[in-house]
Amino acid sequence: MALPKDVRIVEVGPRDGLQNEAAVPTHAKIALINALSEAGYRTIEAGSFVSPKWVPQMADSGEVLRGITRTPGIRYTALTPNLKGFELAMAAGADEVAIFGAASEAFSQKNINCSIAESLERFAPVLEAAQAKGIPVRGYVSCVLGCPYQGEVPVSEVVRVAQALHDMGCYEISLGDTIGVGTPLHAQRMLSAVADVVPMDQLALHFHNTYGQALANLAACLPLGVRVIDSAVAGLGGCPYAQGASGNVATEDVLYMLQGMGIETGIDLERVIRAGYAITRELNTTPRSQVSIARGSH
Amino acid sequence: MALPKDVRIVEVGPRDGLQNEAAVPTHAKIALINALSEAGYRTIEAGSFVSPKWVPQMADSGEVLRGITRTPGIRYTALTPNLKGFELAMAAGADEVAIFGAASEAFSQKNINCSIAESLERFAPVLEAAQAKGIPVRGYVSCVLGCPYQGEVPVSEVVRVAQALHDMGCYEISLGDTIGVGTPLHAQRMLSAVADVVPMDQLALHFHNTYGQALANLAACLPLGVRVIDSAVAGLGGCPYAQGASGNVATEDVLYMLQGMGIETGIDLERVIRAGYAITRELNTTPRSQVSIARGSH
Repeated sequence: MALPKDVRIVEVGPRDGLQNEAAVPTHAKIALINALSEAGYRTIEAGSFVSPKWVPQMADSGEVLRGITRTPGIRYTALTPNLKGFELAMAAGADEVAIFGAASEAFSQKNINCSIAESLERFAPVLEAAQAKGIPVRGYVSCVLGCPYQGEVPVSEVVRVAQALHDMGCYEISLGDTIGVGTPLHAQRMLSAVADVVPMDQLALHFHNTYGQALANLAACLPLGVRVIDSAVAGLGGCPYAQGASGNVATEDVLYMLQGMGIETGIDLERVIRAGYAITRELNTTPRSQVSIARGSH
Repeated sequence: MALPKDVRIVEVGPRDGLQNEAAVPTHAKIALINALSEAGYRTIEAGSFVSPKWVPQMADSGEVLRGITRTPGIRYTALTPNLKGFELAMAAGADEVAIFGAASEAFSQKNINCSIAESLERFAPVLEAAQAKGIPVRGYVSCVLGCPYQGEVPVSEVVRVAQALHDMGCYEISLGDTIGVGTPLHAQRMLSAVADVVPMDQLALHFHNTYGQALANLAACLPLGVRVIDSAVAGLGGCPYAQGASGNVATEDVLYMLQGMGIETGIDLERVIRAGYAITRELNTTPRSQVSIARGSH
């Protein structure tokens, strides 16, 4: 077990974060992504092309992607549940798209109104279209450490869905503790089991901090060799299943930990802190990042 | 490296926590300690017999210790910087006392107005008096992962002060990341170095969550075999050096993590959550525990 020398942070604040916050104006989203672009990220999740009926906060994702100042070397990505979403994402200039399955049958039914198997079938045309255009596709697996509806989620189900997305052609699988209930040993066991069927360098961890465990879980998993972490500036995201609870693990807190461990990310923590204060002012709140609070706004 | 089967939690909320919060009435402190006593702790830090000029929040520690309902099997402890404090603690019925040194010369000077060497000399009479009465003495070392005045603190200094307190007769040494700046590898290296001179079963970790790292640091240290963790109900404590920042790691979040890892504490999480909501109502705030926020008040 050796720590990775560097980690790639996938910034999910503008999408997974803002999707679960009050609506902010399009220009504020563009300003956020532009500020993050100057911080040194290589991947920024910029929007989602799902039905605006489901997720009104993301209805302007096309405008956002068209409005940002693109920095060479950064991939601006978008969620695309179906071919229509994929076409809209392409028209708006997304560099990469993502599809999302669940490891929990109950969550799949409640969240996207179909079984896990049906959801994978629906994604097939997106993968085909993306492959034809040479667009990389990322696969999300939600509820990898627990489900708000069925409770426990067997590791074998996580492995099965991760392998299916990998076999369908996703270049990277992001393992999401959607409700933030996991603890370090559970996270390690889940990651190890998935890494038996999908190479570790094609896996990412996507943890939420609802129960305060996200950094502990990441710290426990880093020695297993994982090298991609999803996080959200200012801990944006909330948690629709627990009022007042925090959402995605804050990028600032992850960066602080990685810096302390001598793991490179290429990202400027101070710029992320400033971007976090700016977007939370739009939301009339303050960053849900302990590092940002300790450092203060400046 | 094997995880411990059980961990003893030293509840420091009523002392290290409330010392750094707005003043609360004596009856509320007594109610807090009584509520915690029913949760299954073996050690509760109940007060501090320092000069009320320095720490007005603790001026009623005698009344508190006299007013609580004692549960057999629980040690109610108190901080005693000198012989006068020790005598007051004994008169109030403390079962155990604690002395506190710093691993940072700058912090020692600013916090207790003397050098580290002088502080250790001042504690000698307390240890003598305690030994004569058969009262166990705990030693705190502050600033083990950083100092608000001098910045970095060499691990060798932490080792030196921990060894000195151990040699003087402290039965347990609590290693404090007073300003919560540590990260997992640093915490592991510090703990390993101290464990070379003081047996691991006489060491405790006392981490603050100012930069959100406390649980990650604990998770990183548990496989080294440490079996005592200091924490505060509701994350009481604040941090006088960073406004709005959180203080001691929340007992609720530690318990949730340990439960998830199959590590026994004997403590009832639900009772701790309720005690945390009750005391934070007195403070006109809400628990600084993600687990408490996610579970909600009920």
